[in-house]
Amino acid sequence: MKFSQIFLPTLREVPSDAETISHQLMLRAGLVRKLAAGLYEWLPAGLRVLRKVEQIVRDEMNAANGQEVWLPQLQPKNLWEETGRWGVYGKELMRLKDRKDAEFCLAPTAEEVITDLVRKEVRSYRSLPLMLFQFGVKYRDEIRPRFGVMRAREFLMKDAYSFHADDADVENYYKKMVEAYKNIFKRCGLNFRPVEAESGAIGGSFSHEFMVLAESGEEGIVSCSCGYAANVERAELPDPSKNAPADAQGTPAYAEVSTPGATSVEAVAKIVKQPAHQFIKALVVLADDKPVMVLVRGDHELNEAKLQRLLGVSRIVKANEAAYTQLSGSPVGFAGPVGSPAKTIADYAIRTITDGVCGANKKDMHVTHVVPDRDFKPEQYADLRKAAAGDPCPKCGKPMDYARGIEVGHTFKLGTKYSDSMKATYLDAQGKAKSFIMGCYGIGVSRVVAACIEQCHDAQGIVWPAALAPWDLIICALNITNTTVMSAAEKLYKDAQSKGLNVLLDDRDLQTGAKLKDADLIGIPWRIVLGERKMAENKVELKARSEKDSRDVPLNDVLAQIKS
Amino acid sequence: MKFSQIFLPTLREVPSDAETISHQLMLRAGLVRKLAAGLYEWLPAGLRVLRKVEQIVRDEMNAANGQEVWLPQLQPKNLWEETGRWGVYGKELMRLKDRKDAEFCLAPTAEEVITDLVRKEVRSYRSLPLMLFQFGVKYRDEIRPRFGVMRAREFLMKDAYSFHADDADVENYYKKMVEAYKNIFKRCGLNFRPVEAESGAIGGSFSHEFMVLAESGEEGIVSCSCGYAANVERAELPDPSKNAPADAQGTPAYAEVSTPGATSVEAVAKIVKQPAHQFIKALVVLADDKPVMVLVRGDHELNEAKLQRLLGVSRIVKANEAAYTQLSGSPVGFAGPVGSPAKTIADYAIRTITDGVCGANKKDMHVTHVVPDRDFKPEQYADLRKAAAGDPCPKCGKPMDYARGIEVGHTFKLGTKYSDSMKATYLDAQGKAKSFIMGCYGIGVSRVVAACIEQCHDAQGIVWPAALAPWDLIICALNITNTTVMSAAEKLYKDAQSKGLNVLLDDRDLQTGAKLKDADLIGIPWRIVLGERKMAENKVELKARSEKDSRDVPLNDVLAQIKS
Repeated sequence: MKFSQIFLPTLREVPSDAETISHQLMLRAGLVRKLAAGLYEWLPAGLRVLRKVEQIVRDEMNAANGQEVWLPQLQPKNLWEETGRWGVYGKELMRLKDRKDAEFCLAPTAEEVITDLVRKEVRSYRSLPLMLFQFGVKYRDEIRPRFGVMRAREFLMKDAYSFHADDADVENYYKKMVEAYKNIFKRCGLNFRPVEAESGAIGGSFSHEFMVLAESGEEGIVSCSCGYAANVERAELPDPSKNAPADAQGTPAYAEVSTPGATSVEAVAKIVKQPAHQFIKALVVLADDKPVMVLVRGDHELNEAKLQRLLGVSRIVKANEAAYTQLSGSPVGFAGPVGSPAKTIADYAIRTITDGVCGANKKDMHVTHVVPDRDFKPEQYADLRKAAAGDPCPKCGKPMDYARGIEVGHTFKLGTKYSDSMKATYLDAQGKAKSFIMGCYGIGVSRVVAACIEQCHDAQGIVWPAALAPWDLIICALNITNTTVMSAAEKLYKDAQSKGLNVLLDDRDLQTGAKLKDADLIGIPWRIVLGERKMAENKVELKARSEKDSRDVPLNDVLAQIKS
Repeated sequence: MKFSQIFLPTLREVPSDAETISHQLMLRAGLVRKLAAGLYEWLPAGLRVLRKVEQIVRDEMNAANGQEVWLPQLQPKNLWEETGRWGVYGKELMRLKDRKDAEFCLAPTAEEVITDLVRKEVRSYRSLPLMLFQFGVKYRDEIRPRFGVMRAREFLMKDAYSFHADDADVENYYKKMVEAYKNIFKRCGLNFRPVEAESGAIGGSFSHEFMVLAESGEEGIVSCSCGYAANVERAELPDPSKNAPADAQGTPAYAEVSTPGATSVEAVAKIVKQPAHQFIKALVVLADDKPVMVLVRGDHELNEAKLQRLLGVSRIVKANEAAYTQLSGSPVGFAGPVGSPAKTIADYAIRTITDGVCGANKKDMHVTHVVPDRDFKPEQYADLRKAAAGDPCPKCGKPMDYARGIEVGHTFKLGTKYSDSMKATYLDAQGKAKSFIMGCYGIGVSRVVAACIEQCHDAQGIVWPAALAPWDLIICALNITNTTVMSAAEKLYKDAQSKGLNVLLDDRDLQTGAKLKDADLIGIPWRIVLGERKMAENKVELKARSEKDSRDVPLNDVLAQIKS
């Protein structure tokens, strides 16, 4: 392709509404444009990258004996009612009515549709296992769409579903899919990590997330050298009471202290001169609408999924002011367990506090020198927090590392969650009807592009891994009016194409600086610059985008050097 | 692929709710399944065909200097309001609100979105011409979805949009696109015809439809050996008054005749013994809500598009009973121009009637021996009907042929319809802002698959053209328990794959008849049958799906014969 003819609008300035690097660079490098909140147009260069990810994913799904199908994005309400998810899915599900007032949703996922298809078409255990996958547009009406295509409302997803006759088979196949996923992200050239994860709204008995490691990632990951890795929401923590220090004996009796206007741990810490791990945060949440007070240490975060499981409820949300005050008898921000009428559930780590600080249940007042089990007694201790750096590995006990990641894939062992509710059965060898055992496996194809940029960029722009680059090579002819330079560039362009390289020829009538800046911004792995002076020696300048320096190379050898 | 492992559910019975051959065969051959009215799931075999069509279309769009993009399917209302189409598009436009009550539609087409993109990104005449295309899901809330994927509510479309600086350039490019479309349908192996067409809701100054010829087609086409071809709705007809016979002088005075219960031309014709072309049909329509009486000959059909243009209105619908009676003073089914208080507009062909029949404006009564311009006087004669077989060609005057077709593509010269209303301008060489001149070009990719089957089938099933077949070759091993047969079949399967053929190996434990029936139903171009008896002579049976007879061929030569 010739740059002068392609629709590749690059931007010098950082767009003001783009918060993350990948969002900024995708706009600046002309990969996407925004149509509306959470809705993006993929321009030619962006689509080239997207299709490369798609093809790698397709290859590996085919290699895992998957069969590609293509399902409607409009899904009828009645299927979602069979599984109960029409009610469970909240406002993230986009819903609409047709001209006859029949209700539909726009696919956020396709468990219902695929289970319906398979229950109608597959009768016998002889047809199992069966894995069907598709590339389809998915919808999620994010309350706050952001980060460009990373958290968009319409996005491209590969979703795959497998059907099995028994548990051993699904577990075996699940392992195969984890390997396929590893191959995919390896082939994409990404630094990633599979971690144990929560199953969320999809459900099922266990699941893994595939995280592209990046400091800007929204997800926290803990991992251990023994091989264990999990989302901080998922990681189980040992009961720290076993290691609880017992040196609270010297702690004086608790006392109230004035903390005017200070409601955060940081603000109170400055006044009382205690570190965050001596703080007792009292949180009031609504567990399926019932108010509950939860205690976690000041340096820890509540893990809502763990609390949800503990209480056996389906939804945890932050309490509003009325519920907070009613339960705790305290103004917002000052609740604490000492002298509170509320029953509390405390995270295990609360026990490690030896000289604690908590709210006094009065405006602008806190309590210091608090000792758990001396000054207050929680109704229950439990594992309620997210894991953090230094926490012991639940497998081997060594302290774990912490990293941030971007979730690009998620695999689930669903079991019979969908087949039971939808009465999807096959006949086993004895002719008995049994529920299909299922797995499902998603990859956010458009998200992989953004995640890759978060991981692979520098101050000048994107640094594509070879496998995802929109072009392999850019040829910059510095002075397009010089016929020697231009004809050499044109010839090189054709030679590179005939060698199977995807080439972009920068034939624009622009200053050298502007051309080189665009080449760096777009992030094409190889750049050849043809200028008058070096051409006189029959040389060109070759530079790998990932390296700092360029080198002069004989014109007739440059393609061979790239190929090697 | 091995038949025993693929998800390819074929059906013996013709599904009761499938009216057309293509719908029946797509279900029976396991290409698609229905999710809900107008929503289809593409199974592996069907998707293979769909992707082949897609790739041919993509190749030709790239060859026509098109650049592929990918646009959201959710489109914001505000863009549709800029062009006024939010109001003009009726119930076929699927609309929804997001969680913040912002309104969107599901893309039926993308003129607004692409014009918005280009007006934001393209500044100069130097960037023109520009052609952008995409493959995207499109939605149309059909009042009566039917014929399977042919008239679905969600379908795959290739839509392309070109932007030009002047009229000569768009017309030149339009011709190039017509050639690209011809290449596409030729490469698909289809018998097709480009015809002049109405522009409909898309608008613009002229357009062409690409019709796959098939008796089951919903569209009528007239064509002439001189090269002229048009949709019967579009074809202009000469004023037939010039050739009107003048032998109505012997016709007696008009007289009322009792026609109890007869309201159709056929029913009345049986009573009065006159042919359909002597009938005067009086139709009452609402032209932008104003009732109008239109006269067309009994053997002709009203062309609403022509009437719409003549009256300069935006919508023609059939009048309801109240409007009919009020205008005509007649009960429904018995209106006629003789003695009617209504002013009428008559199609030119009404003048050729010499001894006419029409309604008497009384229940169960008609009038015979009616002569136009003697017994009633229309306010105006005009070209109001659809063309029919035998009509003279508007280019050369020879009688035209009639055929039926399925519209699979539509090209439009839009002019500045969208760029004017959306203020989409570029700067010309003098720095003056000018509206982009546009063209747009659609292909119903999923519809091509169904249209192909309507054209390419026989009593046994589909007969795929080689370019669209899901597999090139099926190998049927008759007795899978015979190891000689099976190992020869497996070897042939691998050899064929290594020669680049897409092969389906029928390794199912089924009767010979069932296997051969499926092979015919699915319509794979080549079939090799391996049986015990012929294998003893080292021979196999080779059959082309399009030919009646098979032939015995040496096993080691069979692939060479297919390749040649």
